[in-house]
Amino acid sequence: MKLNQNYDKLQENYLFATIDKKIAAHQAAHPGASLIRMGIGDVTLPLCAAVVDAMKQAVEEMARAQTFRGYGPYAGYAFLREAVGACYGERGVPVSPDEVYINDGCKSDMAGILDIFGTDNTVLIPDPVYPVYVDTNIMAGRKVLFMDAVAENKFLPLPDPAVHADIIYLCSPNNPTGAVYSKEQLAGWVAYAREHDAVILFDAAYESFVRDPALPRSIFEIPGARECAIEFCSFSKTAGFTGTRCGYTVIPQALRRGGKALGPLWLRRQSTKYNGVPYIVQRGAQAVFSPQGRAQIRQSIDFYMANAAMMAQTLKACGIWFTGGENSPYIWLRCPGGLSSWEYFDLLLEQAGVVGTAGAGFGKNGEGFLRLTAFGGRESTAEGMERITALLHRFPD
Amino acid sequence: MKLNQNYDKLQENYLFATIDKKIAAHQAAHPGASLIRMGIGDVTLPLCAAVVDAMKQAVEEMARAQTFRGYGPYAGYAFLREAVGACYGERGVPVSPDEVYINDGCKSDMAGILDIFGTDNTVLIPDPVYPVYVDTNIMAGRKVLFMDAVAENKFLPLPDPAVHADIIYLCSPNNPTGAVYSKEQLAGWVAYAREHDAVILFDAAYESFVRDPALPRSIFEIPGARECAIEFCSFSKTAGFTGTRCGYTVIPQALRRGGKALGPLWLRRQSTKYNGVPYIVQRGAQAVFSPQGRAQIRQSIDFYMANAAMMAQTLKACGIWFTGGENSPYIWLRCPGGLSSWEYFDLLLEQAGVVGTAGAGFGKNGEGFLRLTAFGGRESTAEGMERITALLHRFPD
Repeated sequence: MKLNQNYDKLQENYLFATIDKKIAAHQAAHPGASLIRMGIGDVTLPLCAAVVDAMKQAVEEMARAQTFRGYGPYAGYAFLREAVGACYGERGVPVSPDEVYINDGCKSDMAGILDIFGTDNTVLIPDPVYPVYVDTNIMAGRKVLFMDAVAENKFLPLPDPAVHADIIYLCSPNNPTGAVYSKEQLAGWVAYAREHDAVILFDAAYESFVRDPALPRSIFEIPGARECAIEFCSFSKTAGFTGTRCGYTVIPQALRRGGKALGPLWLRRQSTKYNGVPYIVQRGAQAVFSPQGRAQIRQSIDFYMANAAMMAQTLKACGIWFTGGENSPYIWLRCPGGLSSWEYFDLLLEQAGVVGTAGAGFGKNGEGFLRLTAFGGRESTAEGMERITALLHRFPD
Repeated sequence: MKLNQNYDKLQENYLFATIDKKIAAHQAAHPGASLIRMGIGDVTLPLCAAVVDAMKQAVEEMARAQTFRGYGPYAGYAFLREAVGACYGERGVPVSPDEVYINDGCKSDMAGILDIFGTDNTVLIPDPVYPVYVDTNIMAGRKVLFMDAVAENKFLPLPDPAVHADIIYLCSPNNPTGAVYSKEQLAGWVAYAREHDAVILFDAAYESFVRDPALPRSIFEIPGARECAIEFCSFSKTAGFTGTRCGYTVIPQALRRGGKALGPLWLRRQSTKYNGVPYIVQRGAQAVFSPQGRAQIRQSIDFYMANAAMMAQTLKACGIWFTGGENSPYIWLRCPGGLSSWEYFDLLLEQAGVVGTAGAGFGKNGEGFLRLTAFGGRESTAEGMERITALLHRFPD
């Protein structure tokens, strides 16, 4: 019996598991101390009424033999796939329901999709980055190349024609930096992918936070992307589904490699390894697209974006350099006083009771940065920013 | 860009996708013809009241900021892990909540667990078998050995000391044959696994259908199994969760290979590739263990087992040889008249409007057999058995 030796190359803990441990140690040492959590990107507003009503009704359906639902379609119910396709259509992006695969959140499918690709492909990943992209490829033993996302390129790396890659990860609006690619920049990536016969795995989990109409919310807004990209979306941040678990993956019918369409290959994988999202949850997700649902989630997103604006204002007043916070729920700031990521993380936790996420946890280029999220309550966000300001005055650089 | 070439070794469709296609073709050719579905093992009784009430309450919690739940623990909520541990404890099998990992059904975890094992292990799988075991290993490129489950060994193969395996799949009560291992037989497998440093992946999805108190419902009833086995359970058939999606995986703390505990390795995998089961669903699953929940699911299981008894009686009266149906919701019958699995499948579908599952779809030893499930309604099950009997009289062998 041999274990998967690739796991030896991983850090022992997933980043957010490490942060949880640090928080637990702090709370044990300072019982009763109030903590402002701006670390893990978890939402705080409840599910909207449209979603709640739909799920209640679905639970009722499950209670009666006439309306009970057992195994659902592997790719998700048609009612939800059609709602997703229609939503893309309204934005001028043609997506057929047959190209939509309902997932239980971006993470599962961004990890699972790798199953259909050979382990001998070369993977290109931005640094800093959501740790899942890197770890899942290390687990499978793939060769990973990093591209630098740094202040000089506004954390938006562009293709280097001298570097060959087969699988490319892009996340826009970006986690952790909050940076958003323009259409021209994404077109550069699409051109690169087509030239290199590569596939772009496009993480659009934060697309609903884009306010600037000139910025793309889907890679399929870019001509030619249907032949080279897979898009992953989630209701987690859009509709507060972090604990409810639903999203969708779009694989265009035109996406083929080695003479094969990737959609059917993915369905073969999913039908073998997965049984789909709960019926109740899919009904809740469908309600996100109803007129009431749209209006209600828009309010929540507005609420979080008002937090982000307040945070941005505070950081500007403090003279702290940052990106994000405009078309993104994340703010990526340079640690004051030349502190390292974990030094500032510890200082904030110990001296101010504020939890951020150490930038170094997202990759080497994250060193010296910290990520804050706008997903808190209004008062706690204001309190967090006051504490950050006060700490800065106590420890001037 | 290279695709995962191992997919070329798979059959194009997952077994049940093939059957769905045949049904669709039949229905298109004979619109309005009534169909009795005894094929895919999907339940028909609604969720019990205890589960429905718990999920309604959980939906309400998600609607209020004070009780809203975002990301949950990767291994599942403590309330559910503790309920699972307590349930094992009542049956005299000590399982700590820390050894319980909540899953969204057996299938996902039985597929996912392979990630932590090297691809150079040798896998031993019974034939016939639930197709997921085979397909997931083919996808990863592992060497698969088959052991014959045939009428001569009552479809319960025992270890061959001359054959070495690193990973062993056992399913008891068995899908598709309905055969159930005795404690002595499982003890033989535990001894073999310990000697070969192998790990047994024990599929206990049908444990709640065991009525004979002498038969084991968990491999952990066998001394020494905690050092060599992982057990997978599901609420799918126990509590009608096929469309609600929840189950649990038990990895004992004593299970170590290559100097490492397998539980933490699995948690590293899950925290990277998965975000857990919806809170609402976990509350529903917890209610399965309440006194009301237990009484209610017991009624459903009794209902299905009464179907199984009726089916067994009919087959006996027809002189058709079969196994299962006693401590299992499956009946595995020899096709009458020397027909092949798919011949009899087609005949039943075309001439009687009854859907079974062709035994050959589960492996070469399934040829000449057909699986029927007891998960239908009482009247449709009775009608299905009448049709099978009538067809037999029309086509005597």
